[in-house]
Amino acid sequence: MDILNKLQWRYAVKKFDSDKKLPAEKLEVLKQAFNLTATSYGLQPVKLLIIENQKLKDQLVAHSWNQPQVADASHLLVFCIHNDVDENYIKTYFNRVKQVRETPDDVLEPFRNFLIDDFGSKTQEEIDTWAIKQAYLSMGNLLTVCAAEDIDSCPMEGFVSEKYDEILELQAKNLKSVLVMPVGYRAADDMFADFKKVRKELSEAIEEII
Amino acid sequence: MDILNKLQWRYAVKKFDSDKKLPAEKLEVLKQAFNLTATSYGLQPVKLLIIENQKLKDQLVAHSWNQPQVADASHLLVFCIHNDVDENYIKTYFNRVKQVRETPDDVLEPFRNFLIDDFGSKTQEEIDTWAIKQAYLSMGNLLTVCAAEDIDSCPMEGFVSEKYDEILELQAKNLKSVLVMPVGYRAADDMFADFKKVRKELSEAIEEII
Repeated sequence: MDILNKLQWRYAVKKFDSDKKLPAEKLEVLKQAFNLTATSYGLQPVKLLIIENQKLKDQLVAHSWNQPQVADASHLLVFCIHNDVDENYIKTYFNRVKQVRETPDDVLEPFRNFLIDDFGSKTQEEIDTWAIKQAYLSMGNLLTVCAAEDIDSCPMEGFVSEKYDEILELQAKNLKSVLVMPVGYRAADDMFADFKKVRKELSEAIEEII
Repeated sequence: MDILNKLQWRYAVKKFDSDKKLPAEKLEVLKQAFNLTATSYGLQPVKLLIIENQKLKDQLVAHSWNQPQVADASHLLVFCIHNDVDENYIKTYFNRVKQVRETPDDVLEPFRNFLIDDFGSKTQEEIDTWAIKQAYLSMGNLLTVCAAEDIDSCPMEGFVSEKYDEILELQAKNLKSVLVMPVGYRAADDMFADFKKVRKELSEAIEEII
């Protein structure tokens, strides 16, 4: 696989082929890849919703600046942050570390206590800001994984988070939607597919210090 | 290429082999892949510094919580946001669109004016917050590209941004460092390589709505 060819092939698809659905094995790759994303301290403050339900996708278009790709894509991914990264959440994480790695308690304790103190001293807004960054990191991973797997996608910031939260009943689950990404297959006549990619010259986007 | 095997292979390398350098063709892939990252409105508010200079890398360790991977990695990537996303920056972007796609001015003008107004109404802090998210998206892409290319990496939030900005003289270039990522090859004896990955169960990390 040539990753650069894959990234060149990728673009923000505006028109999906609504008849083409992602097969189960492709969905499985997306799920596993999402769960393998690196996250700050390993805390995984991002939950991924995978919406296949057509009625729900249709309903969300109105809260996505009427962008039809939300309804026409095979699946709609919604990246949500956890609102409840507190002492209990952190303890659950360390229990998981202990379970997976069989690390003794006395090894885990100093870092666990550091994180509990650190997060305990942050405002909810600071924690949200931290978690939102992790959602962008996850989406950056998944956009590239999609390209590698010949799956089309469209990264989207333009939607009404409050409406998504309401319709998907996220508040009760301590979640808040922060990013949206329809995935599936481009329509044969999506005119955006032929647009040349606009990027800075490498010499402008990058500086090497030798 | 099985992208999941590659993502399983990836981990946050703490000990790099300081004798193994990334060959030019691998660096070229990283540069091109960075420049192909999707960004909000296509504005590319993130610049990538690629530091090979050993003295500079050594100097930055003290401002990276003394983490040796900053000095030992083949190259140190520093993701910086542009502080100058203003009317002039946006006009330069649209000139680039015009140049690459030969889009007529009257087609570009409404969106250009919308963005100039939109960014003109934001505070510098709001623009920085927006740009920082794009830096995380870029790093999410590059972490996965590194894995696909058998390049080791370590995503890092833990460094003193102000000190990096000072040493790298970023302020004069309207840049601000926000993320750091040493890249290269893991040392044979990095004990972290053998640690089992700790992740939530898929059923916890993901919710499907069918």
